[in-house]
Formats: sequence, structure tokens, C-alpha cells
Amino acid sequence: MSRHTYLTMQTPAEARESWFSRVDELGVELGEETVPLSAALRRTLSRPVEALRSSPAFHGAAMDGVAVRAEDTFTASPRRPLRLEIGKNAFWINTGRPLPEGCNAVVMVEHLNVEEGGRFVVTEKAAFPWQHVRKLGEDMVATEIILAPGVEIGPYELGALAAAGVTHPPVFRKPRVAIIPSGSEIVALSEAKEEDLRAGRSLPEFNSIIFSAMIEEAGGVATVSPVVPDDVERIREAIAAAVESGVDLVIMNAGSSAGSHDYTADVIASMGELLTHGVAVMPGKPTALGVVEVGGRKTPIVGTPGYPVSAIVAMEEFVVPLLARWQKRPAPRRESVPVIPCNPIPSRPGMEERVRVKLGVVDGTCYAVTLPRGAGTVTSLSRADAVISIERDREGLDAGQPVRAELLRPREQIEGALLATGSHDNTLDLIDSMLRRSHPGFRLTSAHVGSLGGLLALRRGQCHLAGSHLLDEETGVYNRRAMRENLQGVPAMLVKLVDREQGIMVLPGNPKKVTSFEDLCREDVTFINRQRGSGTRVLLDYELKKLGLSPARIRGYRDEEYTHMNVAAAVLSGRADAGLGVRSAAAALGLEFISVGVEEYDLVIPLRYAKDERVLALMDVIRSEEFRKNVQAMGGYGTDGAGDVLWEYDGK
Amino acid sequence: MSRHTYLTMQTPAEARESWFSRVDELGVELGEETVPLSAALRRTLSRPVEALRSSPAFHGAAMDGVAVRAEDTFTASPRRPLRLEIGKNAFWINTGRPLPEGCNAVVMVEHLNVEEGGRFVVTEKAAFPWQHVRKLGEDMVATEIILAPGVEIGPYELGALAAAGVTHPPVFRKPRVAIIPSGSEIVALSEAKEEDLRAGRSLPEFNSIIFSAMIEEAGGVATVSPVVPDDVERIREAIAAAVESGVDLVIMNAGSSAGSHDYTADVIASMGELLTHGVAVMPGKPTALGVVEVGGRKTPIVGTPGYPVSAIVAMEEFVVPLLARWQKRPAPRRESVPVIPCNPIPSRPGMEERVRVKLGVVDGTCYAVTLPRGAGTVTSLSRADAVISIERDREGLDAGQPVRAELLRPREQIEGALLATGSHDNTLDLIDSMLRRSHPGFRLTSAHVGSLGGLLALRRGQCHLAGSHLLDEETGVYNRRAMRENLQGVPAMLVKLVDREQGIMVLPGNPKKVTSFEDLCREDVTFINRQRGSGTRVLLDYELKKLGLSPARIRGYRDEEYTHMNVAAAVLSGRADAGLGVRSAAAALGLEFISVGVEEYDLVIPLRYAKDERVLALMDVIRSEEFRKNVQAMGGYGTDGAGDVLWEYDGK
Repeated sequence: MSRHTYLTMQTPAEARESWFSRVDELGVELGEETVPLSAALRRTLSRPVEALRSSPAFHGAAMDGVAVRAEDTFTASPRRPLRLEIGKNAFWINTGRPLPEGCNAVVMVEHLNVEEGGRFVVTEKAAFPWQHVRKLGEDMVATEIILAPGVEIGPYELGALAAAGVTHPPVFRKPRVAIIPSGSEIVALSEAKEEDLRAGRSLPEFNSIIFSAMIEEAGGVATVSPVVPDDVERIREAIAAAVESGVDLVIMNAGSSAGSHDYTADVIASMGELLTHGVAVMPGKPTALGVVEVGGRKTPIVGTPGYPVSAIVAMEEFVVPLLARWQKRPAPRRESVPVIPCNPIPSRPGMEERVRVKLGVVDGTCYAVTLPRGAGTVTSLSRADAVISIERDREGLDAGQPVRAELLRPREQIEGALLATGSHDNTLDLIDSMLRRSHPGFRLTSAHVGSLGGLLALRRGQCHLAGSHLLDEETGVYNRRAMRENLQGVPAMLVKLVDREQGIMVLPGNPKKVTSFEDLCREDVTFINRQRGSGTRVLLDYELKKLGLSPARIRGYRDEEYTHMNVAAAVLSGRADAGLGVRSAAAALGLEFISVGVEEYDLVIPLRYAKDERVLALMDVIRSEEFRKNVQAMGGYGTDGAGDVLWEYDGK
Repeated sequence: MSRHTYLTMQTPAEARESWFSRVDELGVELGEETVPLSAALRRTLSRPVEALRSSPAFHGAAMDGVAVRAEDTFTASPRRPLRLEIGKNAFWINTGRPLPEGCNAVVMVEHLNVEEGGRFVVTEKAAFPWQHVRKLGEDMVATEIILAPGVEIGPYELGALAAAGVTHPPVFRKPRVAIIPSGSEIVALSEAKEEDLRAGRSLPEFNSIIFSAMIEEAGGVATVSPVVPDDVERIREAIAAAVESGVDLVIMNAGSSAGSHDYTADVIASMGELLTHGVAVMPGKPTALGVVEVGGRKTPIVGTPGYPVSAIVAMEEFVVPLLARWQKRPAPRRESVPVIPCNPIPSRPGMEERVRVKLGVVDGTCYAVTLPRGAGTVTSLSRADAVISIERDREGLDAGQPVRAELLRPREQIEGALLATGSHDNTLDLIDSMLRRSHPGFRLTSAHVGSLGGLLALRRGQCHLAGSHLLDEETGVYNRRAMRENLQGVPAMLVKLVDREQGIMVLPGNPKKVTSFEDLCREDVTFINRQRGSGTRVLLDYELKKLGLSPARIRGYRDEEYTHMNVAAAVLSGRADAGLGVRSAAAALGLEFISVGVEEYDLVIPLRYAKDERVLALMDVIRSEEFRKNVQAMGGYGTDGAGDVLWEYDGK
């Protein structure tokens, strides 16, 4: 079994540079075409555009009033008002209309007295030549260059083109890109059977959907081939067909890694030149760059990694900039802002790292919470607010160490977000959705670190609120003691959110007959736990202690998940026989649920945010009848008193 | 003749607020529809989207290697290597593939020794459960909310939807907007005859093109009616037809002012409610907002001003935010940066002013130069880098007074620009175009304040370079004396750009027989002058002085234009009989040209920018053969020595 190794390990910038130089040598020219204005939006001008006519094309009135010859009015003054005759030496005119022959000024209607039923007007002031006149060519003069090549045509540019009489502007032909998805295990999303997808028997191909959209937004046009299996000959044929179809660029998706079924790099080498295989960036490392030649036609090619997060890094580092380069557009760059990471971010020395984060602006400082870093985690793309790049020579970032992040969303969306760090509950997602609907611009973004982690983040001033369900073992009261112990100096209100039923989740039919905490200690039962600091973990430990059971007896006690849903998924997939969590999670995945009690899940909100308009909007949401209805529909929740302020902690 | 007055004068924010409340009361609901992923890009989700399947849908390998049952490997150590049999308790697996039944860990290929031709593998390390496994639901668990309502679908969201099995996401129906252009003097661009447009006999309607594009980019869909003349009944009919067609919003373009042919406000009032007529913003004041009712159907309506720059303010203040509101999207907001105005910006107290500016980042400070402020100046839209808003209670801004500007272009395009402030020459536009083509991301943006104004801007550190053609009357040498007199403290190089022929421009056939400076003093000749501080003005005054002619004798001496092209346009339009300017401007408009001599037009570049990569790129452009060819094609230029450094001024 042969195993490939990466030939080189350039940084993304180095790899891009050398590939671009090689591609430049090929002399790729998009060529140009003309398009009607109605189809020109977001196209890119291919050459300087000159005005075909002047605008305005005549001397016109800039005010409503009468057009006059200025020289006729030179004697007018308050002491010697001047009478002008309509139709003879004064002509009513509206803004925008051409001056009558011989006129060179406009007197505003507000400065005129009308006499004898409109036959005459009287002015008390001399007009100066070209007063209130929009002169021919004031906006643009025929033959002037009005727009430069490389300009992306937006609404304003359409207006300038129309005013200049350019009804069919010259634009670059759209770069054509062939996307070839590959992999014996995957099927095109359009061809997959829903039941096979859900059961995990089919792996859907969706990178081509993301790629096509990225290419479209970069001004190109993509065609997607049928999925090619992991077979050298078939891959070669697909690439050859793409090149022969005359595309400007080929993207071979997946198979660019160094696994035994990863043929892309070898195929590129055999069909032309492999310039780069392996780039010093994580994710995105297994990228191949080269040029292939078929029938004398040389075409640039990128082999992108199969995992979507890696693939997107390859798209953003190599494909999008190449399309911009061909269209003479500046490569897009994201707005960057200073942020403070809430958690340490390890990175591998020698590799640039791209870490996707959520952001929250708390008391004027922007805090970043990392999202799961798996290269296959598509939701880390859609949930991210920003990307932090860690340089090659660093071994990661400490929590609290300032760094810059590139925004993936408009800044106002970041600023409109409430950052909830703490325990996870599905009602948080519901609140987010309802908040966005009732107050577009506001949202709730949540980071799941468990109840205790949330209180600690609040104390550090790194979030706006925290979901918490920490039981005081001695009193059976929720959250107050934990707030007193962990929130010193941060006066805060405890807001009732929901009561929720906790219980043991098992497969339908309860094959292992787990009905109590004692059963979790059985030899034949595997448990899936929640992480330390989570309220559910506290609950488990409390119950075990009450019953005198040692955690060491539970098989899987050290296997941790971070959310109720992931615990439920572990049970559903057979990874564990039982887990502890809320009824709504069990219900969502059709698991059986053995109730062990009801707990209180609250929000802790520092008093200094009590009047924040986003917090007020959130309180409106959780006090609404609609919220109660939606929560009850999820099952396993009580909503009595939702939104009540249970307690105000004075911070002492 | 009746004249309307504005009913009220709310700020844009107040007017928006009251109109939105009224529109909300109408209960407009876009409703939703489902679209395939291939048509979902940039649509807006109408409700929370839940994952229809978990992703991954199975436990899969996260590395290439062999899948094992972790428990089988617990005894492995360097001292007691463990042998596993392929096909029995070890199974080759590639990244992404499902684990075989019973397996719960992957051992990386790098940690294995292969024995007996691949029948066995040997590991020296115990695998822990779920090592190198992507667990079911790691990315998302079925039923979890993965995307919230109001989210605009981009490439990443398409990926998340596909991974979640959501092939037809629910999105808001696109808001439908009817645009009704009006005005007896205008014709639809598609129907206008080219010769009528060029001659100024037809005024083309192009606001609807700009509006349609803005609506499309705001997620809506626009339909444009035929142009309606200024006739109350016809306007009423057009609005009624639009409402009956079921649109969500009607835009009536032009006729919203207070002129005698401006009927929009009256028609709105007569068909329903006129909430606002006249908004305290310049440009944009003559905007009307209301609701019309036709056959029981109530529809919001905006009357936008006819001038494009005003119209766009109305679109951006009222229409775009309403479309966002209906789609539950945050209203778009532009990035704002601190800038220093290079010139005073007057504004009318009581009115908010929106001033469009060019920007240049010089030594880390962003400087703003105002563009022409006419409401009809479409090029002020396409040329602007940013908009400065001046608050209602201010009387304008002084030069040098810090203010914030909202960017109209990505920041990197601002940062890539060289700001040339000074004399105008058409070759600057050519350099800009060539620079953009050779170095996408770089550009030359020029502000026309005359040669002397350019040197003064350089001394204040408010631009990167200046075009100059200042003649020393005593020595006949260009620019050096002016640099010594005006650039103290700024060491700079004088770079030869072009020689250019200056002369007197007259109509073809020279009807007034103007052949010399003496002729400019004739009673029957009207002259059009350039502004003080411009090199051409200096040249004129020098020649007049040499000849002993008094400027007071020249009719029109005080009528000034800022560019050669505008002088040429003034002559072409009959506004003046003669003007002084460069041959290329005369040639561009087909004027006759009486040469009076050749002058030197140079660039002055401070030495501290000599190694700036944008300046180096600019030098490459002006030293290129292509530049010389292009300049020569414009006529009236000499290119000998273009790009030579003529002199280095030491700043003393």
C-alpha cells in the first residue's frame, strides 16, 4: 500500500504567488463582451469607458422660475424693480428643462412677483450669467473617461453608464470554472435517496454547491460534473473533458490528500505540472495546485481537500483571488477588527491556522469564542462571525491575548448580538429565532461551556448573559449560591427561563432495561456523560452521591459531550446505552426517556445590561405568549414564570 | 400659478419611523416560499431551519488508518507490540468512511507497521475509544435549529442546508416593487433615439435602472412602468394599476418636488394618506411618503425626487430599509472611518447633508475631497469613495475638522489609491486605467484644484502627488520655482509626464475669427476662463502681461471652469466663443484649435513616497511604451522623457 507525502510546504501566499506566475505565463485572457445595462449588474468593466454624450446635454434650469438673459436684468434692484414680460424676455421654466435660445440665467420663482394675471413678472435683483443653470457637460463631457477597467458595476455605475449613453458596456467574459466532485463514497445531492442519506448509507456531495455559489459571487460561472469515483483513469478522463470544454480553470474536489485513494496530485503531475502539493495552512493543507495540458490546451487546476472547511480555505486562498485577478479586480479582503479570545487557541507551529469564532461586543471590547475546529464541521462555517489567522511561527494564542479577526458578517450584525456563554438549552436557539424576527438586527449567539463556565465568563466581563442550572446540593435551590460564589463584584439579576425535565435517555424499547441511576453502574451498560461544570453533570454527581454510588463504577463516565443533543445522538447511534439530559432532546431524536426530576434553567444577566435595548427585547420575547407556546411544543418544559426576575444579586 | 410648499420637515430618521409604523399597521406580510438550493443564494430564510438529518450521519474515520475496537488494543505498548489481523479485528479505512460495525476507534496509518504482505498490522500504542473518529452528529444533530430566520443565504449557509438535508429551504417571497418613472420631458432609455439624446432633444430616463439594481441587491424584484407624463390623471392611473397588480411598494419617480408640474404629493394625498412631504436632508429633500388605497388594497408609496443623487438618498433612507424590514434582515449599514476634509464643506443649518467625497490615505490619515454636489451629478455617485453626513444643527465643516465618512467601496480599494490633487489632465485618467489593469487593487484618484492647489495640498500632507504645469514667467522653466516657493519642508521629485499643446479653442470654422490673445479682448467675443491657481490661468495671465493687455478687457474673464473638458464644452455649447486649453480636449469635442505654444505638465511626488509600491507601479506605467502610444493617440501631446526624474527638490 503506497502512501504519498507532501512534496513541499509553502505558505498560502507563497503557493499562490508561484501558481499565479505560472498561470500568468499561460497568457489566459478572458476576452470581453458587451452586455445590455439590464444584464450588467456586478459585471466588471474590461476597458476604460468614455462618455458617448455630455450630461447634461444642454444648459438646463437648476431651479423652478423664469429663464432670462442675465444682461437684461442688470438694472434691477429693490429700489428699481424690473418688470419682465412672459414669453418675450422671461420664460417660465421647471427644474431640468432646457433654457430657451438666448437665455443664460434662471430667476427663482420665490424671488418673483407675478403681475397682471401672469403676463409679467417683477424682480428686484440682477441675475448673474449662468445663475441657477446646470450647464452642458457639468456632470460629464463627451469623450471623458467616466469609469475605469476593473470596476465592478453596481447601481451607481449603471446610472453613470446610462447618463453617458453607454447602453452596452464592455465587460470581461465571466471566467468559466469546471468543478469535478470525486469520491467513491459520495453521491450527488440531487441523486441521493433521502432514506439512504438519513441512514448514513449515502454521503451527499455538497461542496460543489458551496463552490458554485462562491464562484458566482466572484464573478465567474461554474459547471459541475457528475461525481467521479476514486479511479485514476476516470479522474483523468473527467479532467480531460473539462479542459477540452474550454473552461478557464478546473477544480478537482477531494482526493488531493495523501491517502491511498487520493489520486489528484499524481494525476495532475501526469497530465502536466504539479506546482504545489500541500500548503502550510490548517485547515486546507491537502491542496494541490498545477497546470494540466490536454490536446495542446493548458489549463490551471486546483485539487481541493474533501472536507468542506478545508475546501473553503483552498477556494478563498487560490480560486477567488485568481478569478479577481483575471477580471482585474482587487482581490476581496475582509474587514478586520481587534478581538480578545475567551479561550486558549492552540495551533501547530509551522502551519498558519484559520480559526472560526463567534464574536460578542461586551462593554466595548470584542470577545471571540472558538467554534469546533473539525474540517468537516459545516456549521462552523455558517455559525462563525469571524476568522482568526494564527501565524506560522506561533504556537497558538492564550486566552486574553489580543489578536485581529476578519469579519464574515457586517459589523452591525456583530454589534447587535447578545453573547450568551454558559449552559446549553434548545430554548436559546428558539429565543434567537424569535428575537431576530421581532427585532431584525438583534440576535442571541450562544457559546456552550456549561453553567459554571458561563458564570466565570460573566465575572470576566466576556459575555452578556449566561444560561445556568446549578443546583445547591444543600438547599435544593438553583443558581443563587453559585452566583454568590462565582460572581463577586458583578451585580446581576436571576431571570427565570424554564423548568425542564431531566432524565435518562435510552433507545426506544429500552433494550438494556435501564430505569435508575443504579442501573448506570451495571457492567453491561455504557454511559455517555456531560462535561464537568455543566449543570447536568452536577445533577448526576449529586444523585450518585445521594445514592452512595461511585462514579468509577460507571462505564463511560469519562466520555463527555457538550450538549444534550450530542448526548442523545450518542445514545441513538449505539455509542452509549444511556445518557442524562433533557426530555426535549430525547423527544427530538425519538428516544425513550426515564424522568429523574424537574430542574430550573435560568438566565443570569448583569444589572448593568438590564436596560440594554437588546436585553429588553430579549425579555419581551421570553415573556411572550408565543414563546411559552413554542417551548411547550418542544416537550418536557414548564414555562411558569418565564421572564420573572427571581432574585437580584448585589455582587457582594 | 399655484406653488406647493412642503407640509412638514422631519429628519430622515423621523420620517422613516412614522412611515414604517403606518406601513406596519397595514400588516404587509411577504409570505414564504420554498426554493431549491440552486436558486437560494442571497435569499432570506423566513423561519428557523432544523436539521433533517444528523451530520455526520454515522461514526466515520477522521484519519486514514485501520478501524479497530479500542478495547482490543488496550494491551499494546512499545514493549508489547500488538498484532491485528486485517479483515478480522482491523479494517483499512480512509478518512470520511463509516466505521465497520463494532469498531469505535481508528489507528493512524503513520503509527502502524504492515506485516506479511498486508495481512497484519502492528501497533505499539493502545487506542482510546472514539480516537480519530468523527462521531455521528458531531456537526449537527437532527432536529437542531441550524439557521435562524432573517439569515441571508450565502455559500456557507448553502453548505449547512445541504449537510442538514434541507434541499428546499423556506425563504421570504421577494418583495415586489413597482417603479413608475414620470416627466413629460423624459423618454425611456430603450426608446430614445441616439441622435436625439446626443443633441439634448431627449432626456433619457435612467433612475429606474439604478433603482431596479438597488432593489435587486436588497432582495426585491422591480417592475418598471412606461414613462408617465406630468398629468394628474395619468399619474393616478399608473399608481392605481401598480397597486392593483399586487405589488408591495410603489415608487413614483420625479414630480415629488414643489414645482408647478409636481403632482406626486397631491395625488398620494387624494388616493390615501400623505404622511411626509419634504424631508430635512440634502440632497433628497423633495421626498414624499404615504399609503395609497385602490379597490380596498392599501399599498405604501414613495415619491422620489427626479435628480438621481437626491433620488438615491430617498432610496437608501426609505426603500432599502423597508425591504430589509419586511425580510427581517438587519438594515444594511456602511463601514464608517474617520476622515479629514481637505476643503471646507458648507451645509445648510436645519438640513442633514450627505456629501460625497473621494478619499486618499496619506501617511496613515484618511483625507476627503468633496465631489461636485449637484443633485444631478451622476458621476458624483460613481466617483465617490464615501459619504459624509453633516448633522442638522451644524453649519458645515471646516477644512481639517475630523468627521466620519461611510465607505462606498471596500476599504482595500481606498487604501490602494494614490490621491493626486492638483492640475487636471486627461492623461491622469489614462494612468488610472492602465494602473488598474497592470496592478488590480491600485488606482489613481484625482482631485482637480489647479496646479498651485496641488502643491499646497502636498505641503499639508493631504495627497500623494500633484500634477503641475506652473510656468516661471522670468525663466520660462516649469514647476521648479513654484516647488521652491510652496513646498518648503517637503523634499520631492519632479517627474516629467508630458509636453502638451495649449491653444485657443473655438467652434469649427472659427465663426468669430479668433486667432490671437488680442482677439479675446474684442467686444463681440465671450471668453470662458479657468480657475485661479490653474496652470492654464497662469499661462493666460503671462501671455496677456507680455502683450500688455488688461484682463478687464476680456468679456467672461471671471467666468471660470475647473477642467479643460468643461472649457471645451462651454465653447461647444455656445456659452462662450473661445477658451484656453489643451489640444486633446479640443480634439475630443471636435473644436478648432489655435495653438499658442507647448507647455510641460509634470508630476510632483514627495521623496518619502518614492519607494511606495503604488508609486513604483505608477512609474512603470508612465515609462511604458503603451502609455506613450495611448497618449499620442489623444493628440496634442509630446511624450519625450515621460517618467524621467527632472529634478530632486531638497525641501529647503
